[in-house]
Amino acid sequence: MSSADIMGYAAGALTAFTFLPQVVKTWREKAAKEVSLYMFIIAFVNEILWLTYGVMINNWVIMVTNIIMLFMSAIMILLKLKYNHR
Amino acid sequence: MSSADIMGYAAGALTAFTFLPQVVKTWREKAAKEVSLYMFIIAFVNEILWLTYGVMINNWVIMVTNIIMLFMSAIMILLKLKYNHR
Repeated sequence: MSSADIMGYAAGALTAFTFLPQVVKTWREKAAKEVSLYMFIIAFVNEILWLTYGVMINNWVIMVTNIIMLFMSAIMILLKLKYNHR
Repeated sequence: MSSADIMGYAAGALTAFTFLPQVVKTWREKAAKEVSLYMFIIAFVNEILWLTYGVMINNWVIMVTNIIMLFMSAIMILLKLKYNHR
Protein backbone atom coordinates (compact mmCIF):
# COMPACT_ATOMS: atom_id res chain seq x y z
CA MET A 1 0.00 0.00 0.00
CA SER A 2 1.45 3.39 -1.00
CA SER A 3 1.51 6.42 1.30
CA ALA A 4 -1.12 8.00 -0.99
CA ASP A 5 -3.37 4.95 -0.43
CA ILE A 6 -2.97 5.26 3.34
CA MET A 7 -3.81 8.98 3.17
CA GLY A 8 -6.89 8.20 1.06
CA TYR A 9 -8.14 5.52 3.46
CA ALA A 10 -7.54 7.78 6.50
CA ALA A 11 -9.42 10.64 4.81
CA GLY A 12 -12.29 8.30 3.83
CA ALA A 13 -12.57 6.81 7.32
CA LEU A 14 -12.75 10.24 8.94
CA THR A 15 -15.29 11.49 6.37
CA ALA A 16 -17.70 8.72 7.40
CA PHE A 17 -18.02 10.25 10.86
CA THR A 18 -18.24 13.95 9.99
CA PHE A 19 -21.97 14.14 10.81
CA LEU A 20 -21.76 12.13 14.04
CA PRO A 21 -21.16 15.13 16.39
CA GLN A 22 -24.23 16.91 14.96
CA VAL A 23 -26.39 13.77 15.33
CA VAL A 24 -25.28 13.34 18.96
CA LYS A 25 -25.72 17.04 19.78
CA THR A 26 -29.21 17.27 18.26
CA TRP A 27 -30.24 13.94 19.82
CA ARG A 28 -29.22 15.21 23.28
CA GLU A 29 -30.43 18.81 23.04
CA LYS A 30 -33.63 18.10 21.08
CA ALA A 31 -33.23 21.40 19.22
CA ALA A 32 -32.49 21.81 15.52
CA LYS A 33 -34.06 25.08 14.44
CA GLU A 34 -30.64 26.55 13.54
CA VAL A 35 -29.47 23.46 11.65
CA SER A 36 -29.89 23.58 7.86
CA LEU A 37 -32.29 20.93 6.49
CA TYR A 38 -30.98 21.55 2.96
CA MET A 39 -27.42 20.73 3.99
CA PHE A 40 -28.48 17.22 4.96
CA ILE A 41 -30.81 16.79 1.96
CA ILE A 42 -27.93 17.73 -0.37
CA ALA A 43 -25.66 15.36 1.57
CA PHE A 44 -28.26 12.55 1.35
CA VAL A 45 -28.70 12.90 -2.43
CA ASN A 46 -24.94 13.29 -2.83
CA GLU A 47 -24.24 10.08 -0.88
CA ILE A 48 -26.59 8.16 -3.21
CA LEU A 49 -24.50 9.47 -6.15
CA TRP A 50 -21.25 8.49 -4.37
CA LEU A 51 -22.65 5.06 -3.48
CA THR A 52 -23.67 4.50 -7.12
CA TYR A 53 -20.16 5.59 -8.19
CA GLY A 54 -18.61 3.22 -5.61
CA VAL A 55 -20.70 0.32 -6.99
CA MET A 56 -19.81 1.25 -10.61
CA ILE A 57 -16.07 1.22 -9.97
CA ASN A 58 -16.37 -1.59 -7.37
CA ASN A 59 -14.64 0.45 -4.62
CA TRP A 60 -15.56 -0.82 -1.14
CA VAL A 61 -14.10 2.18 0.71
CA ILE A 62 -16.42 4.56 -1.18
CA MET A 63 -19.38 2.20 -0.69
CA VAL A 64 -18.92 1.69 3.07
CA THR A 65 -18.12 5.38 3.73
CA ASN A 66 -21.27 6.50 1.95
CA ILE A 67 -23.55 3.87 3.49
CA ILE A 68 -22.51 5.22 6.92
CA MET A 69 -23.02 8.84 5.80
CA LEU A 70 -26.37 8.02 4.19
CA PHE A 71 -27.50 6.55 7.51
CA MET A 72 -26.28 9.60 9.50
CA SER A 73 -27.88 12.06 7.05
CA ALA A 74 -31.20 10.20 7.24
CA ILE A 75 -31.12 10.37 11.05
CA MET A 76 -30.29 14.10 10.93
CA ILE A 77 -33.15 14.81 8.49
CA LEU A 78 -35.56 13.02 10.87
CA LEU A 79 -34.13 14.84 13.92
CA LYS A 80 -34.32 18.18 12.11
CA LEU A 81 -37.98 17.62 11.17
CA LYS A 82 -38.80 16.46 14.70
CA TYR A 83 -37.00 19.24 16.60
CA ASN A 84 -37.37 22.09 14.10
CA HIS A 85 -39.82 24.04 16.24
CA ARG A 86 -37.55 24.50 19.27
CA MET B 1 -15.16 9.73 -20.35
CA SER B 2 -16.99 6.68 -18.95
CA SER B 3 -20.39 6.81 -17.24
CA ALA B 4 -18.59 6.02 -13.96
CA ASP B 5 -16.35 9.08 -14.48
CA ILE B 6 -19.39 11.28 -15.11
CA MET B 7 -21.04 9.94 -11.92
CA GLY B 8 -17.83 10.62 -9.96
CA TYR B 9 -17.52 14.20 -11.22
CA ALA B 10 -21.23 14.89 -10.53
CA ALA B 11 -20.88 13.51 -6.99
CA GLY B 12 -17.70 15.53 -6.40
CA ALA B 13 -19.22 18.76 -7.70
CA LEU B 14 -22.27 18.40 -5.45
CA THR B 15 -20.11 17.52 -2.42
CA ALA B 16 -18.29 20.85 -2.72
CA PHE B 17 -21.51 22.73 -1.92
CA THR B 18 -22.90 20.55 0.89
CA PHE B 19 -22.09 23.15 3.56
CA LEU B 20 -23.34 26.17 1.60
CA PRO B 21 -26.97 26.06 2.89
CA GLN B 22 -25.73 26.01 6.50
CA VAL B 23 -23.33 28.91 5.85
CA VAL B 24 -26.13 30.98 4.25
CA LYS B 25 -28.65 30.10 6.99
CA THR B 26 -26.28 30.95 9.86
CA TRP B 27 -25.08 34.11 8.11
CA ARG B 28 -28.69 35.32 7.76
CA GLU B 29 -30.10 34.21 11.12
CA LYS B 30 -26.99 35.00 13.19
CA ALA B 31 -27.69 32.00 15.43
CA ALA B 32 -25.56 28.85 15.69
CA LYS B 33 -26.00 27.50 19.21
CA GLU B 34 -27.58 24.29 17.90
CA VAL B 35 -24.95 23.73 15.19
CA SER B 36 -22.12 21.33 16.10
CA LEU B 37 -18.67 22.96 16.20
CA TYR B 38 -17.02 19.52 16.18
CA MET B 39 -18.74 18.57 12.92
CA PHE B 40 -17.00 21.45 11.14
CA ILE B 41 -13.67 20.93 12.94
CA ILE B 42 -13.70 17.25 11.84
CA ALA B 43 -14.66 18.38 8.33
CA PHE B 44 -11.85 20.99 8.28
CA VAL B 45 -9.16 18.49 9.36
CA ASN B 46 -10.63 15.90 6.99
CA GLU B 47 -10.48 18.28 4.04
CA ILE B 48 -6.77 18.92 4.72
CA LEU B 49 -6.26 15.12 4.53
CA TRP B 50 -8.29 14.94 1.27
CA LEU B 51 -6.42 17.92 -0.19
CA THR B 52 -3.08 16.25 0.68
CA TYR B 53 -4.36 13.04 -0.95
CA GLY B 54 -5.46 15.00 -4.03
CA VAL B 55 -2.00 16.57 -4.32
CA MET B 56 -0.29 13.17 -3.83
CA ILE B 57 -2.25 11.48 -6.62
CA ASN B 58 -2.40 14.71 -8.70
CA ASN B 59 -6.22 14.68 -8.91
CA TRP B 60 -7.64 18.14 -9.61
CA VAL B 61 -11.26 17.21 -8.86
CA ILE B 62 -10.31 16.17 -5.31
CA MET B 63 -8.12 19.27 -4.89
CA VAL B 64 -10.71 21.82 -6.08
CA THR B 65 -13.61 20.13 -4.20
CA ASN B 66 -11.67 20.18 -0.94
CA ILE B 67 -10.37 23.73 -1.32
CA ILE B 68 -14.02 24.88 -1.63
CA MET B 69 -15.07 22.75 1.38
CA LEU B 70 -12.09 23.93 3.43
CA PHE B 71 -13.17 27.52 2.79
CA MET B 72 -16.83 26.78 3.72
CA SER B 73 -15.82 24.90 6.89
CA ALA B 74 -13.54 27.76 7.96
CA ILE B 75 -16.41 30.26 7.51
CA MET B 76 -18.79 27.99 9.48
CA ILE B 77 -16.27 27.63 12.34
CA LEU B 78 -15.98 31.44 12.52
CA LEU B 79 -19.79 31.89 12.32
CA LYS B 80 -20.31 29.25 15.00
CA LEU B 81 -17.83 30.93 17.35
CA LYS B 82 -19.38 34.34 16.66
CA TYR B 83 -23.05 33.32 17.02
CA ASN B 84 -22.73 30.51 19.57
CA HIS B 85 -24.38 32.50 22.37
CA ARG B 86 -27.71 33.06 20.63
